[in-house]
Amino acid sequence: MMSGREFDIIEQYFAGRVRSTGPGVLLGPGDDCALFDVPAGQSLCVSTDTFVAGIHFQDQAPGHVAASRAMGASLSDLAAMGASTFGFFLALTLPQESDTWLESFSSTIVSLADHYGVPLAGGNLSRGSLSMTLTVLGLVPAGRGLRRSGARVGDNIYISGSVGDAAGALSLMNRSLAVPDRLRVRYETPVPRLALGEALLPIASAAIDVSDGLAADVSHLCTASKKGARIDSARLPISDDLREAISADELLRCALAGGDDYELCFTAAPDQDAAIRAVSARLGLPITAIGTILVQPGLVLEGADAFDLDRPGYEHF
Amino acid sequence: MMSGREFDIIEQYFAGRVRSTGPGVLLGPGDDCALFDVPAGQSLCVSTDTFVAGIHFQDQAPGHVAASRAMGASLSDLAAMGASTFGFFLALTLPQESDTWLESFSSTIVSLADHYGVPLAGGNLSRGSLSMTLTVLGLVPAGRGLRRSGARVGDNIYISGSVGDAAGALSLMNRSLAVPDRLRVRYETPVPRLALGEALLPIASAAIDVSDGLAADVSHLCTASKKGARIDSARLPISDDLREAISADELLRCALAGGDDYELCFTAAPDQDAAIRAVSARLGLPITAIGTILVQPGLVLEGADAFDLDRPGYEHF
Repeated sequence: MMSGREFDIIEQYFAGRVRSTGPGVLLGPGDDCALFDVPAGQSLCVSTDTFVAGIHFQDQAPGHVAASRAMGASLSDLAAMGASTFGFFLALTLPQESDTWLESFSSTIVSLADHYGVPLAGGNLSRGSLSMTLTVLGLVPAGRGLRRSGARVGDNIYISGSVGDAAGALSLMNRSLAVPDRLRVRYETPVPRLALGEALLPIASAAIDVSDGLAADVSHLCTASKKGARIDSARLPISDDLREAISADELLRCALAGGDDYELCFTAAPDQDAAIRAVSARLGLPITAIGTILVQPGLVLEGADAFDLDRPGYEHF
Repeated sequence: MMSGREFDIIEQYFAGRVRSTGPGVLLGPGDDCALFDVPAGQSLCVSTDTFVAGIHFQDQAPGHVAASRAMGASLSDLAAMGASTFGFFLALTLPQESDTWLESFSSTIVSLADHYGVPLAGGNLSRGSLSMTLTVLGLVPAGRGLRRSGARVGDNIYISGSVGDAAGALSLMNRSLAVPDRLRVRYETPVPRLALGEALLPIASAAIDVSDGLAADVSHLCTASKKGARIDSARLPISDDLREAISADELLRCALAGGDDYELCFTAAPDQDAAIRAVSARLGLPITAIGTILVQPGLVLEGADAFDLDRPGYEHF
């Protein structure tokens, strides 16, 4: 479905500016479908997510923040499968035309598509409340992919980077307090851990990205694996930036219940620990062991008695 | 991203009810990505479309109408490429929970997924104004696919079924007039011409589905093919139902500018006419030659002097 105005906006802000070709892309935007050749020996990964103004980004967020958060979160789903990027689709719904917002949004989509080497293969523009749905395509070696369901009893639980920074930034923003730049970027421009995901393919037994909060996401992984977990709160990687900006009693809530960090949480057998340290060193990305997979279903949070496990994560709905 | 309420709604209305497995689906809903094995010798077709309440379906439309229109229109993009169905993704944004609406919507999604043999491989539920984004995956023989760009000078232009019925129904609805059932179903439950698309793969030179209106969609096809077209208005297949329900002076507007029919408009060399008649007979679906592809860019509408070519189609934006 393509109308005159829709066509003009796509021409002005996206066509000719955004990468729309790539290996395997036979036909990009502008036809009824895009066409791909999936390379032999590869399986296709697909994820779709909607980002709604006022829910997934702030109502008054500039276009570049909406674009960065949507792209970061969507590509993070590929990272959590250990996939490389193959293509993406953008369905954008706009209440009215704002050149400033569209220029900021589209130029960020263009630069991120380039940075991550992922062609924009198609899309859609509609009139309505501000939201966008991204569908991302990735590749993994045939039949592989880091699933949530592979955790085994005795596996270590690891987390990349630090947790709670994005939630800390959002908490400060919501109270109209000053937000340190290094926290702000963690919320506004999340970095999908694509290189880490690919490196973990032969190492990790299960993986998930931290989008709803670490406790909630570990619980999702445990449910899919039909296992339980113990997390040692004292081992959570909490950044100095967060410790300086957030009160002590809110720190644990940010780290355990705060979404939006898009770090990878994964499990691996203890004998993989050296391989994981090597990946961490190669990528220059801290990776911290924070707990263990248990037989008994449920999540045990050591050192976090005050934390309400019944509402462990951010609810998008 | 999956929260507690989102999980409950998906469990209650979709999980275990909808087809989520199929040939090539290695991993369906519930992980960070779905995983597919694309069969050797096949190319992947992908299309994404958003459907907004008040724009693409009426604000007060029951769930089954929203579901039928969204599924019909989305699968029609696969039909227009000559693709078979492979899988789909549903990103649903809901303002509040309505059991009645959700039950009506989900049961229709379930039955259409079954009817068209297309597994729901993943999705997303968000809070916001009512809308849904469907991403559909299909397959064509490697490197094939009916593109808009293949029309050659002298090709005949064909249209399946009849045109204008959906626009006629909508026109009557908007004036709160009685809508004959056979027109209403054309608007509320569009049928994607999947079997026709597949049959046309070795026959047609170019194809598009009629979503914005026949004149606009022929223009899109001509632009992509860098050609022009002459359409003979007297040959347009207008149903008796539409002739009886709509005034004579509105008929041509419905047939030429009315979207939502989701018939296939395609071009083929004149020597393919017998093959096209055979496909029509086999499928029990009328196919009508309505014009010719020309060298000179632009659209000539014979017998439709009063029709405003500057605003030939429905604008979704």
